[in-house]
Parts: sequence; structure tokens; C-alpha cells
Amino acid sequence: MEAFSDGVYAIAITLLVLDLSVPRSTTTDVASALRHEWPIYMAYVVSFASIGAAWLAHSAITEYLDHADSLLLRLNLLLLFFVSVLPFPTHLVANFLHNESGERVAVTVYGLNLLAISAMTSILWRYALAEGLVSDEKEDDDIRALTRKLNPSLASYVVAIAVGLAFPYVAVGIYLAIALFFLIPFRAIGRWLRRGRHRPASPPNATP
Amino acid sequence: MEAFSDGVYAIAITLLVLDLSVPRSTTTDVASALRHEWPIYMAYVVSFASIGAAWLAHSAITEYLDHADSLLLRLNLLLLFFVSVLPFPTHLVANFLHNESGERVAVTVYGLNLLAISAMTSILWRYALAEGLVSDEKEDDDIRALTRKLNPSLASYVVAIAVGLAFPYVAVGIYLAIALFFLIPFRAIGRWLRRGRHRPASPPNATP
Amino acid sequence: MEAFSDGVYAIAITLLVLDLSVPRSTTTDVASALRHEWPIYMAYVVSFASIGAAWLAHSAITEYLDHADSLLLRLNLLLLFFVSVLPFPTHLVANFLHNESGERVAVTVYGLNLLAISAMTSILWRYALAEGLVSDEKEDDDIRALTRKLNPSLASYVVAIAVGLAFPYVAVGIYLAIALFFLIPFRAIGRWLRRGRHRPASPPNATP
Amino acid sequence: MEAFSDGVYAIAITLLVLDLSVPRSTTTDVASALRHEWPIYMAYVVSFASIGAAWLAHSAITEYLDHADSLLLRLNLLLLFFVSVLPFPTHLVANFLHNESGERVAVTVYGLNLLAISAMTSILWRYALAEGLVSDEKEDDDIRALTRKLNPSLASYVVAIAVGLAFPYVAVGIYLAIALFFLIPFRAIGRWLRRGRHRPASPPNATP
Repeated sequence: MEAFSDGVYAIAITLLVLDLSVPRSTTTDVASALRHEWPIYMAYVVSFASIGAAWLAHSAITEYLDHADSLLLRLNLLLLFFVSVLPFPTHLVANFLHNESGERVAVTVYGLNLLAISAMTSILWRYALAEGLVSDEKEDDDIRALTRKLNPSLASYVVAIAVGLAFPYVAVGIYLAIALFFLIPFRAIGRWLRRGRHRPASPPNATP
Repeated sequence: MEAFSDGVYAIAITLLVLDLSVPRSTTTDVASALRHEWPIYMAYVVSFASIGAAWLAHSAITEYLDHADSLLLRLNLLLLFFVSVLPFPTHLVANFLHNESGERVAVTVYGLNLLAISAMTSILWRYALAEGLVSDEKEDDDIRALTRKLNPSLASYVVAIAVGLAFPYVAVGIYLAIALFFLIPFRAIGRWLRRGRHRPASPPNATP
Repeated sequence: MEAFSDGVYAIAITLLVLDLSVPRSTTTDVASALRHEWPIYMAYVVSFASIGAAWLAHSAITEYLDHADSLLLRLNLLLLFFVSVLPFPTHLVANFLHNESGERVAVTVYGLNLLAISAMTSILWRYALAEGLVSDEKEDDDIRALTRKLNPSLASYVVAIAVGLAFPYVAVGIYLAIALFFLIPFRAIGRWLRRGRHRPASPPNATP
Repeated sequence: MEAFSDGVYAIAITLLVLDLSVPRSTTTDVASALRHEWPIYMAYVVSFASIGAAWLAHSAITEYLDHADSLLLRLNLLLLFFVSVLPFPTHLVANFLHNESGERVAVTVYGLNLLAISAMTSILWRYALAEGLVSDEKEDDDIRALTRKLNPSLASYVVAIAVGLAFPYVAVGIYLAIALFFLIPFRAIGRWLRRGRHRPASPPNATP
């Protein structure tokens, strides 16, 4: 399950680059042509950060798993469905972010996809906890920390989708903020700053 | 063999997204343009579910294998041929599902591809059983359960292809139903409902 | 090294499908439009079989390796260069196989690419043998069998490229034959026929 | 972390082939049409060599790691961002290398991307060293050798970017030279030449 899932995340995150369209070779002012396409780059960065954050959450879950059952494999496949389809609404957003009539639809579809990824990740984790699939060696504190980290994004995505109906651009900014919130390791940076780099740390386990 | 196969399944399932064409950026009514392209989404969902089901069957087989011989590697490569080519008839179906003269050809080619994946998966499993490549640790009940699960799809695909010659749309619906039949873990859901969530289950092995 | 190489082979073999162009949705006679594009399917099949055969040879080599040194990693990267570029001459052949002025160039470039894959695979294996990187546990007979199997394709590719300068179509046929010669497990089929399916075999190792 | 990273490197290096555009099937002089597109092939080779060199460096780092912490996983994700986006500036360079007004911008963007990959690889390694994430079993000499090998490329990229503002073509040549400098195993070749092939070597570890 892990190799296949890692493969789908890796491919989805790398396929995004195919949507970064290159200006025609007859363009004379390349720099301004590239600047003009900023919505495409923005959509790319938001999607890369979102899939990256989703992969971190997923790899934390698989690390905590002791074994899988048949329902977990199916829930995981449904999660991978929403991950692998993300390049499509990314393309929609990139295409319609200067288009007033279309940007609302595009940003809403995009937000629903991100919400689905986040919701399925939470469901996967809750199911694993409820069915006793989580390894006994993991400490309860770490398990609760992961549960806490997975929760807030769901509510934030719902808020962002609602905001996007009125202000599509703001929603895209919130999507980026949600991904960065998961990606930036505040606790690790805090520990590192407090230590003032006096001595090398040796944490016994990765806590993504 | 497992890493390479998982890679091909993961890539084939993720490449499908490249066929989800995005409306032009000059479109004014994006929502209706998206609705108009429903055959593309339907073909995407059917193909994702079919490759997902094929991957589940394949990963169950590789889990049961004790070792591989040279003929098994070749049969596996032939199976991967039919898996990796599926995005092509998917694109055909997406393209011709509103086109009366073409939809019959497209749906038939698509069905033959799904039948080939299903047949090769069955052949792979039967060959492994006949040649004693299956691990001795697996119980006979589990082996028979897997054999039983692999069989019915073959006959169903033949029926669906025949139906598709007269009613292409119906055939696409049957293809989806066949994949969902394999994907929905009826036995696991049944167990779960009977338990009424009273106590956490701890199945000793994954039984995809 | 193995995960990265398997990934490149799996991606190259699956990306080939992107070149199978689908007739326009306005085409009325889909069946004949598909038949008309037979050079594209032929190029697809030949390239799939060639990458498949190259992967089998590569996975046999990595199975025999005990460890890698820095030069082996680089030779392997050069081999992967020729593997990952193969979709390009495949597309050339598909595009120019009905075009008299172009088919000779296309088929020759294609043949040189196949020759390079085959030559680099041989060089990788010879280097591993010369530097003592092959595991001691493997028997000399198996090692010699692999060496023997890798040799003939080199000479056959040179002959096919020469033939292709005069008869491009014949060369494409020879390329397919070379790949099939490696893919079809004559020895295993022979053993299987002699046994007459009387008793299940249990070969101790995979010998691809 | 390793499977996901290897996947991203493998996909990025293989996706480059999609930018090798094939001449139209109506072209009469295919050979000269191919020759005319030499900037595309050059950009392909430089990017393949650069990602290949970056993968070698990355796999050396992951081989030396004993464990990962949460910040390392994030730094790695940022590195993968720059790896997976490289096909975009590669396409830019391929498209604008005969276009005087655009080639400067394209080559500079390309150089900045290569610099970012190189800088993030160095940062990843320095962070792992500073935080004590490197396996104790590795010898200090090998660790210093890797550190030494990672450093010079940073300065070279800065020089190449500056040169590229005046002479874009020269910069592309330097980018290729930097990748080849990392790829060609001078020390291994030196050892091999000195030995004169008298006896088979048996290096205890891979030293990429």
C-alpha cells in the first residue's frame, strides 16, 4: 500500500509541471509574458504545497500503522482518487483566475477537491484508530498530536470555500496558508530557536 | 517485480487526469462547459475504479506469492501492457460518448481492454497456483476466496461487451458496477455492521 | 539505485501511451480512423516490448549484484538516459511510417536508441563482472546463461539498422522479433511442455 | 522519504522527454528538421545530466542518514519542489535559444532553478550534519568527501548565471560542465587506470 500511495503522490505532484505553459517561441518580451501568467504559477505553488502537506500527513499515518485491513485499503484508494485528480482543478484555476465569470466556479471546484483530500485523510486516520490498526509502540502523546494536527484544516477549508464564493483570490490565499501551516514545523523551529544551536539534537523518531 | 508493477499501476492511474480537458480561458459559462463534458468525467471515474480494482487484485496476488519464476514475470509484463494502455481507450470513450457513429467502437475497444486486464490477472493467479509459487503459510480458505473473487468479473465483462454493441451507455455503467463490486468490501462492511462498533477489531492480516 | 531505476523504466513504459493519438471527436468512421493509424500502434507495441525486455535484463542484473560502486551508478544513469528518451524516437517512427522521405531517418534513429540501451545493459553487466560486484552466492552457470542471453541482441540490432536503411518496415519487424526473443521464455516453456503438467514445479530462484 | 523522493526524481527526469517535439508528419526533410531543433536536445541533455547529478547527491545523503526529523522532511520537500519544476525552464530554454530577446531571460531562470536545487541539496546535508542525523557508522573521511563535492557547484552556478546575462549559450555550456563534473567519477577512473586492470577491485561500499 505504501509504495503504490507514494507513487501516486509523487506522480501527481510532478505532473503539475505539465500545466506550466511556456510562451510561444515568437514572443519578443518573454519576461513580461511570464509575469502575465502569474495565476498559473500561483496555482502551481498552492497545489504543490497542498499535495506535499497531504503526503506528509499520509506518510505519518502509514508510519503509525501496524497493519492494514481491506476497508483501509479502499479508503486509501478513495483518498488517492482525490489526490490524483487535483491537477485538473489546478488547471481550471490557472486558466480562469483572470476571468471574472469563471474564477468563482474554478476556485470552488478546487476548494472542494482540497477539502475532499483533507477529509479522506482524517477519515483514514480515524478508521485506523477505531479499528486498532495503529502500532502499539507509538506513544499516546504522538497519536494525539497527529489527530490534533489533522483536524483544523477541515474547518479552514469549509471557511475558505465560503469566502471564495465572494472573493476567489482570497480563497486561493487561504488554501496556500492552510498548506503552509501544515508544512512549516513550528514546534521544531521553536525548539531549534530556544536551543540557540548550542548542542546537536538527536530526536529518536521522525515526527512529520 | 512488485516495485515495477506498483509503479506502472500508479502511473497509469495518475496519467488518466491528463485527459480531463479544461475549457478554454475565453469560455464565459464555465459551469455549463464543465457539465457538458460529463462523458469525460464518467470515463475517468470508470477507468480509475477499474485500475484501482485491478491493483487491489494484483497486490493480493503478489502478497500471496512466495517467489516468481521467469514465466510469471513475462505474464506479469503482459498484464502491465494492458494496464498501461488503458488511458488510450479511456480517451476514446471520453471523446466519442456523444457521437453515435463512434461510441459503439469506442466502448467495445474499452471493454476488450478491461477484459484483457481481468483475464491476465486470472491467468497470473492460476499460473502461480499451478506452479506452486504461492506461499505455504497462506490458508486454503483465503486462497479459495481470492480465486472466487477473481472469477466473476471475466463473465461480466463478456456480457457487458455484448450489451455495449447495442447500448454503449449501459455497458459503461456495467463496467463501473464491476469495478465497484470488487472495490466495495461487502464482507468487511457486513462484519462491521454486525459488530455495531462495540469493540475494535484486530484482524491479523490484510485481506484485500 | 534499484527503486530509482525501476521508477524510470516504469514511467518510460507508461508514458508511451501518451503518443497514441485519439481521432477527433468529429470523425464519423472511428473504426477506419483507428485502422489507419496502425503505425502508431505498431511503434507502441515494439517500444513496450523493448523496454519490457530491457527491464527484465536490468532486474536480472540488479538481482545478481552484491553491491554497487560509484562508476556502476554512473553507467546505470547513462543506461537510464537511453531508456527514458525512447518515447521520442517511438513518436518519430509512429509519425513517419507512411512518409517515404522520413521513415528511413526515423527508423534509423529508433534503432540506434535500441542499440544504445542494449549496449549499455551489456556494459553494465560486464563491468559488474569485471569489478567483482556480483554476489558470490550465484552459480557460475546462471551467470554464464545471463551473459549469453545479453550478447546476441547487440549484433541483431546492428544488422536491423543496416537493413532499415533499405527497408524500414522490415527493420521495425526485426526490432519486435529481438524484443520477443528476450521476452519469450523458451527454456521455461520447454521444461513445462516436457513435464506435461504432471507435477507442480518449485524452482528455487527466479531466472528472468 | 526515500521512496517518495526517488519517485519525484525519476518522474521529473523522465517527463523531460515530453518536451522533445517531433516534426510534423508532413515534413519532407526530417533529418534537417531534427538538426534545426538542436537547442531542444541540448536543453534535454543538460537537464537530464543535472537531475541525474542531483539524484546521485541526494541518494548519497539519504544513504548517510540514520534517521529523519520533521524539519528535514520539509527541507527535502522544498528541494523536490525545485527538482520537479525543472522541466518548465528546460522548456523555456529549448523554446528561446534561437530568440535573441528571450534567450537571456530563459537561461537566467534556468540557472536560478539549478542553483536552487544545488543550494537546497547543500542545506539538506548541512542540516543533517548539524542535527546529528548522520549515521555514526560512516567514516569522517567519507563525510568530508561528500561535503567537499557538494560545495563547488554553488559558486559555479552563480558564475554561470552572471556569464549568462551576457552570453546565454556559454552559460548553458557551463551548466552541462557542472553536471558532468559531478557525474564523471574522476577518482574511480583514476584508481582504475592506476590498477591497469590487473586485479578485480572489491570496494566495501558504494561512494557515489
